[in-house]
Amino acid sequence: MGRLDTTGTLIGADKVAGTTVYNAEGENLGSIHDLMIDKQTGRVAYAVMSFGGFLGMGSDYHPLPWSTLTYDTNMGGYVVHLTREQLEGGPTFSEDEDPHWGDRDYEKRVHDYYGSGPYWM
Amino acid sequence: MGRLDTTGTLIGADKVAGTTVYNAEGENLGSIHDLMIDKQTGRVAYAVMSFGGFLGMGSDYHPLPWSTLTYDTNMGGYVVHLTREQLEGGPTFSEDEDPHWGDRDYEKRVHDYYGSGPYWM
Repeated sequence: MGRLDTTGTLIGADKVAGTTVYNAEGENLGSIHDLMIDKQTGRVAYAVMSFGGFLGMGSDYHPLPWSTLTYDTNMGGYVVHLTREQLEGGPTFSEDEDPHWGDRDYEKRVHDYYGSGPYWM
Repeated sequence: MGRLDTTGTLIGADKVAGTTVYNAEGENLGSIHDLMIDKQTGRVAYAVMSFGGFLGMGSDYHPLPWSTLTYDTNMGGYVVHLTREQLEGGPTFSEDEDPHWGDRDYEKRVHDYYGSGPYWM
C-alpha cells in the first residue's frame, strides 16, 4: 500500500497511526494511536497519542489538538512544541475510560490546556 | 478499544476503515479502505473505497470526496447516493498505481465527477 501512503499534501490515516511523536529536542515522546474525526465536518479533531506501554496495553491516551502537531520529514515523525512534563500533565484517559468525546466542557479543557482553538470553531 | 471508537460527534479513523458503504437501496457496494487527510488543514479529503477483491488483493481503489458519505446508524455504515455504475465509472486506481494525490487537475476531476466542491476551497 506504499502508494496510498506517500503523498505530498495528503496522508493516509492508516499511515498516521503508529507515527512517532518527538519534542523540539528530538526526544521520542510516544506515538499516534488513532485520529478522532468530526463526522459532520470531516475535520481531524484530535490525534490520540500513546506514551507506549507493553504492546500498547495499559498505556494512557492523550488527546492532542491536531494543530499542535507538525510533520517533520527529516525526523519521519510529528514534532510537538511540548515537554514530556507538559504532556504528562495534560488531559488523559485510560483504555477502560470514557474520554468524553462530544462533551464540550471536556473538549474545551483539552484545547485550553494546549492553547489551541477548539476544532468546532 | 471500544471506548475510543464509539462517540457521538467524533469517530476514530481506525473505526472508519473497514466500514461498509451502501447505496440508497441498502445494497452493499464495498467498504472504506483508508482516509486521506490534508496535512495542512487536518481535513479529510477523501475516503478511499474498495470494491472488495480476494482478501483485498487486486482490488481497485475509488477516492470519494468525504462529503459524498453519510453515516447511517441503522445500517451501521456509510450511505452514498450513487449507483454501482456511477462508482464503477468514477476515477479509480489500482494497488500499483499512483493515485496522483496533490495533483490538482486529477483531484478536481474527482470532485467534478461526484459534483462535490474541492476539499481545498
